[in-house]
Amino acid sequence: MKDLKNYIEENKERFLNELFELIRIPSISAKSEHKEDMVKAANQLKKSLLEAGVDKAEVMPTKGNPVVYAEKTIDPNAPTVIVYGHYDVMPAEPFELWKSPPFEPEIRDGKIWARGADDDKGQSFMHIKAFEYLVKTKQLPCNVKFMIEGEEEVGSPNLGPWCEENKELLKGDIILVSDTGMIAPDIPSITTGLRGLSYWQVEVTGPNRDLHSGLFGGAVANPINVLCKMIAQMQDEKGKITIPGFYDDVMEVSAEERELLGRAPFNLEEYKAAIDIAEVCGEEGYTTSERTGIRPSFDVCGIWGGYQGEGAKTVLPSKAFAKVSTRLVPNQDNEKIAILFKKHFESIAPKSVKVVVTPLHGGQGYVCPIDLPAYKAAEKAYTQVFGKRPVPVRSGGSIPIISTFEEILGIKSVLMGFGLESDAIHSPNENFPVFNFLKGIETIPYFYKYFAEIMKK
Amino acid sequence: MKDLKNYIEENKERFLNELFELIRIPSISAKSEHKEDMVKAANQLKKSLLEAGVDKAEVMPTKGNPVVYAEKTIDPNAPTVIVYGHYDVMPAEPFELWKSPPFEPEIRDGKIWARGADDDKGQSFMHIKAFEYLVKTKQLPCNVKFMIEGEEEVGSPNLGPWCEENKELLKGDIILVSDTGMIAPDIPSITTGLRGLSYWQVEVTGPNRDLHSGLFGGAVANPINVLCKMIAQMQDEKGKITIPGFYDDVMEVSAEERELLGRAPFNLEEYKAAIDIAEVCGEEGYTTSERTGIRPSFDVCGIWGGYQGEGAKTVLPSKAFAKVSTRLVPNQDNEKIAILFKKHFESIAPKSVKVVVTPLHGGQGYVCPIDLPAYKAAEKAYTQVFGKRPVPVRSGGSIPIISTFEEILGIKSVLMGFGLESDAIHSPNENFPVFNFLKGIETIPYFYKYFAEIMKK
Repeated sequence: MKDLKNYIEENKERFLNELFELIRIPSISAKSEHKEDMVKAANQLKKSLLEAGVDKAEVMPTKGNPVVYAEKTIDPNAPTVIVYGHYDVMPAEPFELWKSPPFEPEIRDGKIWARGADDDKGQSFMHIKAFEYLVKTKQLPCNVKFMIEGEEEVGSPNLGPWCEENKELLKGDIILVSDTGMIAPDIPSITTGLRGLSYWQVEVTGPNRDLHSGLFGGAVANPINVLCKMIAQMQDEKGKITIPGFYDDVMEVSAEERELLGRAPFNLEEYKAAIDIAEVCGEEGYTTSERTGIRPSFDVCGIWGGYQGEGAKTVLPSKAFAKVSTRLVPNQDNEKIAILFKKHFESIAPKSVKVVVTPLHGGQGYVCPIDLPAYKAAEKAYTQVFGKRPVPVRSGGSIPIISTFEEILGIKSVLMGFGLESDAIHSPNENFPVFNFLKGIETIPYFYKYFAEIMKK
Repeated sequence: MKDLKNYIEENKERFLNELFELIRIPSISAKSEHKEDMVKAANQLKKSLLEAGVDKAEVMPTKGNPVVYAEKTIDPNAPTVIVYGHYDVMPAEPFELWKSPPFEPEIRDGKIWARGADDDKGQSFMHIKAFEYLVKTKQLPCNVKFMIEGEEEVGSPNLGPWCEENKELLKGDIILVSDTGMIAPDIPSITTGLRGLSYWQVEVTGPNRDLHSGLFGGAVANPINVLCKMIAQMQDEKGKITIPGFYDDVMEVSAEERELLGRAPFNLEEYKAAIDIAEVCGEEGYTTSERTGIRPSFDVCGIWGGYQGEGAKTVLPSKAFAKVSTRLVPNQDNEKIAILFKKHFESIAPKSVKVVVTPLHGGQGYVCPIDLPAYKAAEKAYTQVFGKRPVPVRSGGSIPIISTFEEILGIKSVLMGFGLESDAIHSPNENFPVFNFLKGIETIPYFYKYFAEIMKK
């Protein structure tokens, strides 16, 4: 790749400034008050894509937030790469834990600090800049289509329908995604598996109003006590999820493949120290990597009810709420799991309360075979830039839309992530090392090069 | 009692206006930002007491909120009644459920609507107005001392020490309290038992920061999942509290006394309909009245952790919190229970989390014998005004200071409450029927009359 390192070195200040402009728009898809910011971020991306050299770029409406679509055709016979990313970000609460404001990006200690620095504004932007390099230096070997959505963090509810309506537009050979991580700055890795997700809000109602906990306590069901008991029942002593039928479709991973996955470097003591826990915990019979990589999980993402202020208020509250989620593995179907959960959760509710289960979010898991041409191209690209062969890993995270792409468009995805675990995505103080940002821009052009070469054969 | 009904009829508008002035001061003891309102409310009460005819009134400092003390001596040989009440109120959250602002009292449907309308500004004020009547009409048969504190809703932490320091000042024959309820407007009752209270905040910490629930879920303990499991373990299938030693000191009530208490009118269907629940629930082997009257209970008054906003945030939070309380019965000791709880709660925590238990509040239970002279006087007073003999009841609520009075001052208390269950104390839309407010003012003078007569014998 002619002049690649020079190009990056000479333009990196500008790359960062352009990324910062995008980050400053608080495009939080979970909150309806940011509706206008979503459109603003989409238009900002369209501008960046046009400047980078696409033939055309459009902000295309959906029932929710728009999709930014752009394309450049170099040769109808060349392979077509569809770059997928998302411009929406997670909410930034709790704000007080941020060392610098989440939407005022700054560089400290060699890292970009901001919500979206990594997930996924930073990583999406690497693709725009890698593409810019290939266009400006006239080395682009593939046709490229960009598809950058604004609802990934809320489960991409409108991208599936949008793909359905735009099947012709979205013809291509591979979907290229940077929305995952690598093991360490010096250990490149490619994500070959993603977990699915099924996410609900549950509401437990006891009495029709808050009661005095002395006058009623002991005789009237307390919805917080009940909710805790119901949640506690969702997992047994061995860490297994107790929803009947939950494991029916779980793809069991062979001993051989488990051995292979176990080769990825992992240091339990460092893992525990990094998040300051004395012990890991999870499903009996599996390692930590297996618990997040090949096994489903059950997590309460939020809970609230009753008095949460200063001091002691003796109240027996009327309602308690929780946001409850399961991560799923291939071949679990998130819609089937949603039905099983609702049925089970309602069935274990005592008659003294009313329970409402509202599905909020869902997506299927995904597996990428390591003999896929695009996987091979990605592997060569990392090897070229990092000087070592990347490790295939199964991630515990979910990108629900990846399996939808396969279903609707019949196209596989390759997940070239450049984030690190310490990037704290979804947490306060999200960050993205400038090193990784630039390494991403350096690696992606090689993917195009090797993918074009492999597809020619 | 000469002219009593006329006096009330002629002055009731003024009584209400004076009470409203007190209610408008948001004297919320649980919140430190209301520190100045506490002093303001105390001074307002001092003014009311002086106008009602006490010899002297003082706002006496404590380490916390001041105590309003006032007295009138008619004869050193006459019996002395100490009136106890409190001018602090509960927090008013959730505000959005109030039909009129909590600190802007108004009368609708014959009721005063406001925080403190009943508990305990309204009920304390009845005593000041009953006293005013007795003084103005020159019929006061007892010496009277007023002791109105500002920390009842946070467990009266400084009233015990204040009593200790003012033992001489507080010599008396009985403590008279209106901080409880009656069964119905036409069924007068006297509270003969109160439950104790032990109240804690618990904090469960998992990882040192919020984590991505996909990348870590299933391998790292989720503090909400863990907290729910710990709370669920606090009660067994029969509704018994599982803290080892918890029931050791519980005063078991004889079958005979249970039969007597069971005579108090109670309609389960009306009870359930009033709070819109399909079923009551509680400790096996006890009736609803017994569950709140003679048995301890375990209630989570508040819980929070993780994401509580709109939509779905996939987070494995760092921390989860709960406000946890037990109501205690004679002879359980709240400090002993606090130690047992802390020890047990910490012992059931898995090693994957850290647990902190902070005591917030505590008080002992209380029993008033029905052969006490003051009980007899109260019984006669109600019979006089309501035309029927009052029912003795065991309340589920707590007034922790009542047992402290007995310990420190060696004086029993009589609980002449005029509130109703529908007054929604501690809840949004607290109210107090004007009927009950005026009936209280009418009944209290008879208590003084009969108490003086009984004590003379």
